[in-house]
Amino acid sequence: MYIYELEFKVRDYECDLQGIVNNSVYQNYLEHTRHEFLLENNLSFDKLHQQGIDAVVARIEMAFKCSLRSGDVFVSKLYVKKEGVKYVFNQVIYRKSDDKLCVRAKVDTVVVINGKLIASLPEFDELVEKSHRR
Amino acid sequence: MYIYELEFKVRDYECDLQGIVNNSVYQNYLEHTRHEFLLENNLSFDKLHQQGIDAVVARIEMAFKCSLRSGDVFVSKLYVKKEGVKYVFNQVIYRKSDDKLCVRAKVDTVVVINGKLIASLPEFDELVEKSHRR
Amino acid sequence: MYIYELEFKVRDYECDLQGIVNNSVYQNYLEHTRHEFLLENNLSFDKLHQQGIDAVVARIEMAFKCSLRSGDVFVSKLYVKKEGVKYVFNQVIYRKSDDKLCVRAKVDTVVVINGKLIASLPEFDELVEKSHRR
Amino acid sequence: MYIYELEFKVRDYECDLQGIVNNSVYQNYLEHTRHEFLLENNLSFDKLHQQGIDAVVARIEMAFKCSLRSGDVFVSKLYVKKEGVKYVFNQVIYRKSDDKLCVRAKVDTVVVINGKLIASLPEFDELVEKSHRR
Repeated sequence: MYIYELEFKVRDYECDLQGIVNNSVYQNYLEHTRHEFLLENNLSFDKLHQQGIDAVVARIEMAFKCSLRSGDVFVSKLYVKKEGVKYVFNQVIYRKSDDKLCVRAKVDTVVVINGKLIASLPEFDELVEKSHRR
Repeated sequence: MYIYELEFKVRDYECDLQGIVNNSVYQNYLEHTRHEFLLENNLSFDKLHQQGIDAVVARIEMAFKCSLRSGDVFVSKLYVKKEGVKYVFNQVIYRKSDDKLCVRAKVDTVVVINGKLIASLPEFDELVEKSHRR
Repeated sequence: MYIYELEFKVRDYECDLQGIVNNSVYQNYLEHTRHEFLLENNLSFDKLHQQGIDAVVARIEMAFKCSLRSGDVFVSKLYVKKEGVKYVFNQVIYRKSDDKLCVRAKVDTVVVINGKLIASLPEFDELVEKSHRR
Repeated sequence: MYIYELEFKVRDYECDLQGIVNNSVYQNYLEHTRHEFLLENNLSFDKLHQQGIDAVVARIEMAFKCSLRSGDVFVSKLYVKKEGVKYVFNQVIYRKSDDKLCVRAKVDTVVVINGKLIASLPEFDELVEKSHRR
């Protein structure tokens, strides 16, 4: 089902005074996974922005199942589907050592061109297609 | 309904290459608001942690309505209620200049003592009481 | 000697697994202090950037004297002088509870207009003047 | 001269409103490089901390030569020498595409055991030895 995955390693500065990765950092991991997925498909979040095309997160749901710690290696996976005007990214993060689910997330994004919401972007529709074919 | 509010100002390093506050930073704002709310009620997240009592986020839902930018002042508000073992924080962030809603969030937290989930913490139940009385 | 000061409070997410504010976060504090100082003098780092004028840090020296912790309130102060093409910010951070020096920093900045280094910016020269008059 | 190197890729959330990696983030890169270097030598910053042994940054000097941007891959290198009680890390960051120097840094660290400064730690002296042998 997942069509892209990226491996990370926890960096110590990402851990907070509880000694675990701070919750907000998982949003960084999820974002970086989406942007690397775009890059692999020849789409750059930065270049799109410079062309006036912005992928914007409208809503995010995250379930925290297990905390990552200093030194942990983990795998971040995603697939994307279309729901109305939204491109919905389904994302998970698994700890590599024991394949334990750490985070499950649903990230609703929309595309805005020069500040105006658009119904679809052909380049993104292709990514949805790819997910379907899986 | 909201029983606590805290004023912030966007810091430039919180903005990303789109020129707006990065989505993950709102989780920082929401966390800081909860921790300051605890402090105002003589509860320190850090001291609780040192006593083996951890308030842990189990789930978060965030709707992004309007982006904050460099220089923006905003108000972050919350109230908390009990749902089963969960302490559920309802949080909003409003831009101060025009009272526009920027983020609405629901943050489910649970209390863990020495790694074991507990059903309730009297100190937190009091905060729920305070919310009810409003 | 210092011509501007700003009060902050440590936010828990800024602390790392040692339970103290992570060293990199002091750079955030120092930057925010400089940008707020600019704003007080009717200069916006963001607006300058949009006009193609970028204040760029060329060099930074930081001495860490004492660690800030969860809940600490601190005061960040600065003055600025000119050294050749550089605007040099001298900055200190003091813990408020006991006036203890936490960080002393020297931040060399230069001004770049549309990618080209310039010798001076009248608006910044005024800030240097202000520091001298002190 | 350098005895350890680590490859990174810029993550978009690390870029600020100038569209370049925020200066404070280089401190994160430098720290992560040091900690990974320790790990490669079977020393964990986190585990040392749990044993009451803290490597603390006393002073940092960073020269910013060239800005990293979205998508850039870079290599971070280091060696370490002893100067009195200090373990001094000499670190550089090079952009991979053209081998351009981005950051040169000197990071003075000291070792503190249960809050008390110590003159040397045998495990760290070995890392200095390794640097010398190069």
